[in-house]
Amino acid sequence: MTTQLFQNAANSADLAADSAITVDLDAIVENWRYIDSLSSPKTKTAAMVKANGYGLGSGAVASALAGAGAEIFFVASLGEAIELRQIFRAKNHDNLPIMVLHGAQRGQEDALAAHHLIPVLNDLEQISRWQLFAKKTGTSLPALLHFDTGMTRLGLDADQADWLIQNKAALDGLDIAYVMSHLVSGELIDDPVNRRQLACFNDLRSWFPGVPSSLANSAGCLLGRDYHFQMTRPGIALYGIHPLEKVTAQLRPVFDWQARILQIRHAVAGDRVGYGGTVELQRDSRIATIGVGYADGYRRQLGGKAKVSIGGQVAPVIGRISMDSITVDVTDLDKAALRADFAALIHDDYRLEAMAADLGTISYEIITNLGQRANWHYHGGV
Amino acid sequence: MTTQLFQNAANSADLAADSAITVDLDAIVENWRYIDSLSSPKTKTAAMVKANGYGLGSGAVASALAGAGAEIFFVASLGEAIELRQIFRAKNHDNLPIMVLHGAQRGQEDALAAHHLIPVLNDLEQISRWQLFAKKTGTSLPALLHFDTGMTRLGLDADQADWLIQNKAALDGLDIAYVMSHLVSGELIDDPVNRRQLACFNDLRSWFPGVPSSLANSAGCLLGRDYHFQMTRPGIALYGIHPLEKVTAQLRPVFDWQARILQIRHAVAGDRVGYGGTVELQRDSRIATIGVGYADGYRRQLGGKAKVSIGGQVAPVIGRISMDSITVDVTDLDKAALRADFAALIHDDYRLEAMAADLGTISYEIITNLGQRANWHYHGGV
Repeated sequence: MTTQLFQNAANSADLAADSAITVDLDAIVENWRYIDSLSSPKTKTAAMVKANGYGLGSGAVASALAGAGAEIFFVASLGEAIELRQIFRAKNHDNLPIMVLHGAQRGQEDALAAHHLIPVLNDLEQISRWQLFAKKTGTSLPALLHFDTGMTRLGLDADQADWLIQNKAALDGLDIAYVMSHLVSGELIDDPVNRRQLACFNDLRSWFPGVPSSLANSAGCLLGRDYHFQMTRPGIALYGIHPLEKVTAQLRPVFDWQARILQIRHAVAGDRVGYGGTVELQRDSRIATIGVGYADGYRRQLGGKAKVSIGGQVAPVIGRISMDSITVDVTDLDKAALRADFAALIHDDYRLEAMAADLGTISYEIITNLGQRANWHYHGGV
Repeated sequence: MTTQLFQNAANSADLAADSAITVDLDAIVENWRYIDSLSSPKTKTAAMVKANGYGLGSGAVASALAGAGAEIFFVASLGEAIELRQIFRAKNHDNLPIMVLHGAQRGQEDALAAHHLIPVLNDLEQISRWQLFAKKTGTSLPALLHFDTGMTRLGLDADQADWLIQNKAALDGLDIAYVMSHLVSGELIDDPVNRRQLACFNDLRSWFPGVPSSLANSAGCLLGRDYHFQMTRPGIALYGIHPLEKVTAQLRPVFDWQARILQIRHAVAGDRVGYGGTVELQRDSRIATIGVGYADGYRRQLGGKAKVSIGGQVAPVIGRISMDSITVDVTDLDKAALRADFAALIHDDYRLEAMAADLGTISYEIITNLGQRANWHYHGGV
């Protein structure tokens, strides 16, 4: 997928930006199809496109997946849902349901209905709010019911679930499309909490016969068909990141991140590099300054840890990361390699997972914080 | 500045978003005026608005500062400069110069000239490129000359500077508006590197008599008038962040960050909270789930460290930070406080500096990565 982004003078945005991100929509579609293939044909495979499609562009990602046959989409907030609805309207996907994980917050009822959005109801207050609105408008309103089975984050707690089971009239006027829950530690295949949550969820859903169910996030999709029910909700796997520690799923990386080489300079032994002069060069060196910095989501803690690839050769990032640039020791690179105009920030010798490990975080956090200053390209899709 | 953002039902964007950021343009103007007051009336005080105005919105920030009398603006890349030029055009500030720190990269000459942008020339290659373009177009082209005095990042190295001083014809056709350099450790008031850089810069500038000079970033503005020359270039101080460790400058905080309380739930002793179940509750508790997560720049490492303020009372963030939400222990909060619809993420008991310290980074990195999913408000300005 690597392309000579900055040598394409025909593209003025590439000429103007110092970094570029290319999203491979076909790879995202392929990852969705792979996850879809793991479950029974009767199980629907939704697509999680919250947080702007995990940072990669919810409009482009959701449109590509809708074109590939995905039928259900999840976002976090009403704002994200309205944005996606507008995109779907423009692209003739307006029939597709959009589920709002944070539910029906106070005052949001009109907007949810106006944009044909389906809230995930997380507590009795939300249920009551949505039911009152159904009554007021004289319509039957769709919703998902979310039961907490161990996250203590969103969803009805055990007491509220008990109450609801005893008082199902609280759901009158609502059309419950799915009951759902969410896995705490799905990425740890052997964690007994997975089976405990599964048992708890099976107990809860037994009180709602005939209502379809959903439990699996990406990791859950890989835990086996017990976890799939009538709908899975993969997120991170669509974006090419392996959710499970021990299983190698067939997922393709979906993005490429490059930045312009702004300057290549000579420096002598004893020179110090970057803010605070934290690195003292031990030899006469060549230093390349590259146009990406922590304002672009190239995190500050990567100084002295990360490696970039220039003309196919690997060079270490030295000194502190600046807001708009990084400094790289290219002393050992061939002259031929240094004819490149750009550096690859994620590459075979420094994959997204390695960057996440160097930051003590998960890949999710990196991709959801890629900066808007880059020039964004989308390949593939429909 | 704290406002009841989410109770303003008249604002549909606030109703739809789960978090809101309010930027106080008057505070930014006041900070610029304070920095400006430190230098002689003959010294111009530029405004650094790169990285989208340090994450807070370059268009709004630059327009407010232009209205307040700032006359010179700096950005990093050509792309940022074109965006700012378009905003200035729309707001009748088109006469204001925009300096591009990353200079004239290959192929950018036409766009720089078309948008009346002034490149900071960082090496002989850039000088030659800009001079050739001047010759080709038969015009005199403005530029800044950047000499490196210790960053080893951008700017002419010592050898190139020597060569240029011996070969000033290389500048024919260029109108050098300023010679400049950049401080390595300006934030450390006693670091001897400051005075070494100052001496080195004074030597270099002596070879360009009559050309105005510029050395000071925000920290440099506070180091004293020796560092000010004809132009200072404050950045971070405009955004209310103190650049110096030991000096208390009169800077006002410029932004406010709040997020919606999505749900308040009961949990019992022994329940675990969040992904991985990393926290086990030691008592029956009330947990609030708040609509901000690491995708919004509320970093994952804040789990178990940060504190939010709800209805004026402080509550700890517990468990892992999710992509779209955090969980907060509100057991000890008054019922009255829990009537609030939102939590303040930055507040008197947990200032931006405290968050940066918890993350082992600098405040700059936090503000430049605030997420676009928030509803952004701007107060003040002109």
